[in-house]
Amino acid sequence: MLVEGFKTSAVAAGIKPGGVLDLALIYSEPAASAAAVFTQNTFIAAPLVVSKRHLAETGDRVRAILVNSGNANAATGKAGIQAARACVDALAVYLGCPANEILVSSTGVIGRPLAADAIKASIPKLVSALHPGNIEMLARGIMTTDTVPKIATAEIGRARIAGVAKGAGMIHPDMATMLSFIMTDAVVPNGDLQQSLQYAVERSFNSISVDGDTSTNDMVVVLANGASGIRPASGEFRDKLLEVCIQLATAIVRDGEGASKFVELIIEGAPSEKAAHTIGRAIARSPLVKTAIYGADPNWGRIVGAIGNSGIPLKSDRVDIYISGVPISAATLEQARQKLSQKEVQIRVVLDSGSASARVWTCDLTEGYIRINADYTT
Amino acid sequence: MLVEGFKTSAVAAGIKPGGVLDLALIYSEPAASAAAVFTQNTFIAAPLVVSKRHLAETGDRVRAILVNSGNANAATGKAGIQAARACVDALAVYLGCPANEILVSSTGVIGRPLAADAIKASIPKLVSALHPGNIEMLARGIMTTDTVPKIATAEIGRARIAGVAKGAGMIHPDMATMLSFIMTDAVVPNGDLQQSLQYAVERSFNSISVDGDTSTNDMVVVLANGASGIRPASGEFRDKLLEVCIQLATAIVRDGEGASKFVELIIEGAPSEKAAHTIGRAIARSPLVKTAIYGADPNWGRIVGAIGNSGIPLKSDRVDIYISGVPISAATLEQARQKLSQKEVQIRVVLDSGSASARVWTCDLTEGYIRINADYTT
Repeated sequence: MLVEGFKTSAVAAGIKPGGVLDLALIYSEPAASAAAVFTQNTFIAAPLVVSKRHLAETGDRVRAILVNSGNANAATGKAGIQAARACVDALAVYLGCPANEILVSSTGVIGRPLAADAIKASIPKLVSALHPGNIEMLARGIMTTDTVPKIATAEIGRARIAGVAKGAGMIHPDMATMLSFIMTDAVVPNGDLQQSLQYAVERSFNSISVDGDTSTNDMVVVLANGASGIRPASGEFRDKLLEVCIQLATAIVRDGEGASKFVELIIEGAPSEKAAHTIGRAIARSPLVKTAIYGADPNWGRIVGAIGNSGIPLKSDRVDIYISGVPISAATLEQARQKLSQKEVQIRVVLDSGSASARVWTCDLTEGYIRINADYTT
Repeated sequence: MLVEGFKTSAVAAGIKPGGVLDLALIYSEPAASAAAVFTQNTFIAAPLVVSKRHLAETGDRVRAILVNSGNANAATGKAGIQAARACVDALAVYLGCPANEILVSSTGVIGRPLAADAIKASIPKLVSALHPGNIEMLARGIMTTDTVPKIATAEIGRARIAGVAKGAGMIHPDMATMLSFIMTDAVVPNGDLQQSLQYAVERSFNSISVDGDTSTNDMVVVLANGASGIRPASGEFRDKLLEVCIQLATAIVRDGEGASKFVELIIEGAPSEKAAHTIGRAIARSPLVKTAIYGADPNWGRIVGAIGNSGIPLKSDRVDIYISGVPISAATLEQARQKLSQKEVQIRVVLDSGSASARVWTCDLTEGYIRINADYTT
C-alpha cells in the first residue's frame, strides 16, 4: 500500500555485523506535520535530544526520519549528540532540506560510540534507494531482536495510514527500545495529530510495555503530509490511528522474547479507565502470573495477588475471573487449564468497584526469554 | 541458642501432602510485647485480619503465634476468617490464655478453604511438642518452596535475639509470601520495639522483595518477653535486630527460586536514602539486569536503563559502576565478566547527585525460576 508522498529505504551500513539492514530512512515530499511521543526514562538518548530540539525549532515540521539499529547512541554524552548531528547534517545535504527538518532515532546496545562515519558513508546509497513501495525494508531496517517485521495499515476513504514498529522485549522492550513510525497522507491539523497520537499510544503501546518501564530511546512518531487532500473527521482519524497502533503494539507482544503465548487482559468494573489500566499492567508484569500462563496453570490466586499489588484501592474485594470465557471456580479448573494451553489466551477480570474498563496485552514468561537475554551481546 | 522463656514446635498436620511439617507454634512464657509489620497488598488474607484485630485488642500483648504452611487462607472470605478463629480458639484452650493473645499466620496456595479441622486435631500434639531448643523445626514448619530453613541469631550481652523466616521467591516472594518471626528475651519498651522493627524491616526485608510487590500474607513479627531481665540501650537493640533481619532477608535471596547468584547492590551518591533505595530496587527488579548477571554479561547499559526507570530525578547523569570492585569501562569488560561469573556479585553504583546511600540484595533470573513457577500446583 502506498501512502502518497512518502518514500522509504533501508541499507546495510555496517553498524551491525553480517551485512544486515541497519540504516533506514523515511522521507516525505511535501514536508509533513509531526506528532511524537518520547520515552519517560530519566536518561534520554542522544537522538531523542536532537529530535526534540528539531521539533521545537520547526514547530513540528518534518521532512525525514533517519533510523539506525545496532547501536542506541545512549549514555554516550556530548560525543553522542555530535555524532547524531553529523549524520543528520550529512543527510540534509543530500535531501536538500534544513537539518532541523530531520528527526533521528537509534536502537541497539547502550554505551558504545555511534559509527557516524559508516552512517555518513551510506547516506548516498540510502537516499538513492528511496521508493514509495518498500515499507517492508523500512520495517526490517529497524529490527534488533525482532524475529518478524511489523507493519500495519488502515484506510480512511482514499487517505491512508501505514506504520512500522520494532520491539521484541517482553517485560520491557529489549535493550530496551520500542520504536514506531507512522505515515499518513490524510490532512490532519497539528493539534489534532498530537492529541490523536497521545490517545492512541496510551491505549496501544502504553498498554503493552508490561513493566511501566521505558527505555532511553523509545519513540513513536506520526507524520501527516496531507498529500491525499482528504481531511477525515477528527474522531475518525483518531480511531484509525488507534487501530494501526494496536496492530503494531500487539505485533510486538506476539514477537515477545521467548514468548509462547499471546495474552489479552480485559479489566472491567474498575473505578476509572486509568485504574483499570494500572491493574491490567500490574497483572501483565507479574512474573508469577506470566509463568503460570506458560505452565497452563489456572492459578488465579496469583492474579488476585497482582491486582492487590497494583496499589489501586477497590471498594469491594469481589473479583470474578474468566479464562478465555471460562469463569474460574473449583469446578472449572480443568476446563480453564485447557484454555490456557492454547496459543491465544484471554483473561477477563471483573471487579465490583465501578464501570470503567481497559485492555492490556502481554505474553507468557518462558525459559526462552532467559536464554535470549542472558546471551545478548556486550 | 536459647531465647529465655520461648518454646517452639512443629508437626505434620496433613495440610501439605507427604507428611511434611506444616504447622508450627511459637509460645512465650511470660506474655511478650509484640511489634509487627504486615503486607501492603490491597487484599489482606484472613490470618492477618485476625492477627491485626488481636494486637489492637490486647495493646500488642502476645502469648503465641500459630503458623501453617501449604494454604494461605487468602481470598477465602468470611469462611476464611472463621477458620482462622476456630484454630486460634482451639489453641487458646490448650495454652490456657485468651484467644486474642494468639497471632495466626498462613502461607501457601491462595483461594482454597483452610483445613481447620486437620489443624485443630493436631493442636494437642503441637502443644506437647513445645521445646526451648528446636527453632530449626519451627523454621522447617513454615517452609513452602524454600530449600533450606532460615535462622538467624544475635546476642546483646546476656540477652538474645533469634529469628526464622520463609520465602524463596525471587522477583516477588513465592505464592507470594514472606514470613518472619523473631523472638527476644531482652527488655524492650513497646514503642522502641515497633520503631526498631520498622527501621530494621525497611533496611532488610524491604530491601530484597525485589518488585516492591507484597503478598496477601506477608508478615514480620518480633516478640520481646523480657525474660532475660536485660534492657539494652535502644540503639543497640535496633542494630542487633537489623543484623538478624539482614541475615534472614539475605538468606531468602540466597534461596531465591532458581537463583544461581547472590547480588548485593550498593547505591551511593543519591539525593536521599529513600531515593538510593528506590534506585536499588529498580535495578534489582529489572529482568534485563538479572538475566545479564545470569549470563555473566557486563551489560551496564541495562543498569543505566533501570536507574532511569526508577523515576528518581538526578541532577547529574554521571554514573560510575563497579562490578565486584572493577570499574566498568570498555577496557575492563573482560575483567568484569570474570567477576560476574562468580557466585557472589557486588554491583556498586556511584551517582553524582548527593551523598546518601542504600543497599539492596537480589539474585539472578534463570530458567530454573521459570520451571519452578510454571509448575507450581493449582
